[in-house]
Amino acid sequence: MTNLYGIDARSGERLEPAVPETTPGEVAERCAAADRAAPALAALPLDTRARLLRTVAAELDAAADELIASADRETALGRPALEAELARTTHQLRLLADEVLRPDFLQRRTEQGADGTPSFLRTLLPVGPVAVYAASNFPFALAVAGSDTAAALAAGCAVVVKAHPGHPLTSQRVDRVVTGALRAAGAPDGTFSVVHGMAAGQALINDPHIRAASFTGSQAGGRALFDAAASRPDPIPFYGELGSVNPVFLTRAAVSARRSEIVSGFVTAATRYVGQLCTSPGLMFVPADAGLDETLAAELSAVPAAPLLNQRILDGFRQGTQRLAKAADPLVATTDGPHLFRTTIQEFLAHPELMEECFGPASVLVAYEDEADLLAAAGRLPGSLTATLHAEPSDAAVVGQLLPLLTRKVGRVVWNGWPTGVAVNRTMHHGGPWPATTSAAFTSIGTESVRRFQVPVTFQDFPGDLLPTPLNA
Amino acid sequence: MTNLYGIDARSGERLEPAVPETTPGEVAERCAAADRAAPALAALPLDTRARLLRTVAAELDAAADELIASADRETALGRPALEAELARTTHQLRLLADEVLRPDFLQRRTEQGADGTPSFLRTLLPVGPVAVYAASNFPFALAVAGSDTAAALAAGCAVVVKAHPGHPLTSQRVDRVVTGALRAAGAPDGTFSVVHGMAAGQALINDPHIRAASFTGSQAGGRALFDAAASRPDPIPFYGELGSVNPVFLTRAAVSARRSEIVSGFVTAATRYVGQLCTSPGLMFVPADAGLDETLAAELSAVPAAPLLNQRILDGFRQGTQRLAKAADPLVATTDGPHLFRTTIQEFLAHPELMEECFGPASVLVAYEDEADLLAAAGRLPGSLTATLHAEPSDAAVVGQLLPLLTRKVGRVVWNGWPTGVAVNRTMHHGGPWPATTSAAFTSIGTESVRRFQVPVTFQDFPGDLLPTPLNA
Repeated sequence: MTNLYGIDARSGERLEPAVPETTPGEVAERCAAADRAAPALAALPLDTRARLLRTVAAELDAAADELIASADRETALGRPALEAELARTTHQLRLLADEVLRPDFLQRRTEQGADGTPSFLRTLLPVGPVAVYAASNFPFALAVAGSDTAAALAAGCAVVVKAHPGHPLTSQRVDRVVTGALRAAGAPDGTFSVVHGMAAGQALINDPHIRAASFTGSQAGGRALFDAAASRPDPIPFYGELGSVNPVFLTRAAVSARRSEIVSGFVTAATRYVGQLCTSPGLMFVPADAGLDETLAAELSAVPAAPLLNQRILDGFRQGTQRLAKAADPLVATTDGPHLFRTTIQEFLAHPELMEECFGPASVLVAYEDEADLLAAAGRLPGSLTATLHAEPSDAAVVGQLLPLLTRKVGRVVWNGWPTGVAVNRTMHHGGPWPATTSAAFTSIGTESVRRFQVPVTFQDFPGDLLPTPLNA
Repeated sequence: MTNLYGIDARSGERLEPAVPETTPGEVAERCAAADRAAPALAALPLDTRARLLRTVAAELDAAADELIASADRETALGRPALEAELARTTHQLRLLADEVLRPDFLQRRTEQGADGTPSFLRTLLPVGPVAVYAASNFPFALAVAGSDTAAALAAGCAVVVKAHPGHPLTSQRVDRVVTGALRAAGAPDGTFSVVHGMAAGQALINDPHIRAASFTGSQAGGRALFDAAASRPDPIPFYGELGSVNPVFLTRAAVSARRSEIVSGFVTAATRYVGQLCTSPGLMFVPADAGLDETLAAELSAVPAAPLLNQRILDGFRQGTQRLAKAADPLVATTDGPHLFRTTIQEFLAHPELMEECFGPASVLVAYEDEADLLAAAGRLPGSLTATLHAEPSDAAVVGQLLPLLTRKVGRVVWNGWPTGVAVNRTMHHGGPWPATTSAAFTSIGTESVRRFQVPVTFQDFPGDLLPTPLNA
């Protein structure tokens, strides 16, 4: 048996106890158990389903001290950030519990037949057992009990989570809390389990019982799993949130009107979570004559370096900043800390590698001359989770030209704000075209995330009392 | 330049004029034109978008005589069926025009920020240019101006249709009607085009401008295109409707209560459109002691053979019936006409090839002893578009056990009716798990089919008057 170990993210020290990797045989057992649980779970009344989510939230809150201490050790994100993240995690679960109880949750729609034509009831049902691949950067909110798990349970699906190797001990602790809470709230055995290790993750995506998978992580890792899901004998949907440069566009008028606010807003956004956010602004188009470079460089240089999540992310950050340094001029290059690069629009258009995400606190400033430059760049950008416009009412013409380009490239457009800080609500779309995600039609955050794990079924001429629970309610 | 030819489906005679295959270079031009049209098309007011659909419907109606004569020659489906199909085609277009004008069409949802938090508007926008692969069996309703084209135009997307080689002349005629109608109604150039030939179809799925694709056809053809879509550098969604055995379950009580109605209903459903329907009942579970086999065989034998759509489908039908004959006993085996096979539940479970669709007028009867047999079979069935239950109120217990199995396997469950005759309405789900479709979350028929071609975008703190048309309306 192979073991995984948690690593102290500040000291690099190996933590005990070891976490055993899940064998492919054990993965098959968990998936079979999830499949056996599926019909009973789907048939729970909706208020019981909501109670499962609320009980998980309550038990996570009750275990907060132990969980936060563990996550801080394994990620170095710090107690305040982790407290906020755990609060977001339990908020997600409770928000989805509320959503389950909304009258339109199952999108029931009926059509009465006339003149001998059939009657129909169309509704949403759980897709079946779901595989969730946890992220490194949010050990609670995008991990074992994170938004994907909450969405799958809200849909009525059993879940098998592949834990992230960056925080195996925290994952184990959250696993125990969730498993206990679900049992206490009346979920069938097999509703939830966690697997560890690379081989387990590969077995999971290929397991015949798994009907959908979700993932937040790197483009390379996500693509490998997407390819595995798509090349199964029975392809399954793979909802991956992969990577994003999150372009920001500054007009001259915006810089004139709000220079210092923009500078401090950018520096805060670019270094939040040590730059380890999917929505971190990796690219900013600035007027060439605005004289912003030096100010931005000075403020960014003043931000102290902080430990990254783990050695793999640090290695990736070093490679990413080296890649950017080959094509753009470094303005700030703190060792293993904040980086800022500068280039021109012509160089930018000639170097597609500047359009790729560098995960961590690194951004590229692109100096533009006129609005035609902005439109040319916007037309060439890859898919992103977000785009941000800083502009003034006098910029209406260029905004009107940019928006149709940007709405084809991103899932969220931010006006005079910053893309970091994803609101968990009923209006969030956290998605976007490839490579931001593998599936632009769905969000991984917010209540609509549940739609990934529901499938429509139409009942034709069915007697109401013979419909399955909870449809016969 | 290579040419395609229409074939007279009754005589096998080659029809003039030749239809030139579209070269890969021409496909690239059409896709680039669709991409250039996309922003202007997306920005049309919704009532203009609805008018495009209505104008196409009106012009198709106006050309009915010419179109039906052409389609009858190329498919041998007969004038009455083709008249009904053209009516369904224009109904689809008008129903989607109505849908575009419904207040909830864009699923706008807003959330007002409080205490300095942002405000959000979430809505659906067109995904971008769409590739549509036409089907052979519905030369109007699932072809050049069929439900996929209607859904894409309703979503605000430009469309490039790959015509089916089974009816190239009809496709060309419909192309001319649609192109003229769209131009007259004010659609931008490049909104719509049709390409011909296998090489064009392959170029189309790989074109970088195409953002989504849809298909109705064979499992082999659909899988090849799905694989191409998934292995692009930027994978795109591929909505394929591939094949389905559409199991029917007869309880003893149902046979006792409605024997002759069930027999004639089955024979009508199995031979409708010469069995060339995606929803044709290919499999029926019958009580072993009901003595239905001989009655069904006698009624089916009385149905005269009719020409299949084309030589390729006839070849496939011959291979399919040979495959079934190896594993089941033939009850009816009309040369190139209706076929009926019989087997036991044990043989059925031991021969997965009996669970595969044989496109054309062929069905398999599976004799079962008790309800445990039905549950065992339902648990092993592949994904289908439909499942049908013939049962009585006294069967509530077995229905309660079957339904949770069936709703995980099919997109539509029919009670005491037949699966053929897909209603085009707001409650239809024409979909199901693989191999029925490549994407169980979406329907290819009915108003919800438009969701395949819309993507959500969230606007954060955006001034209403700067939103793009039609959102600023």
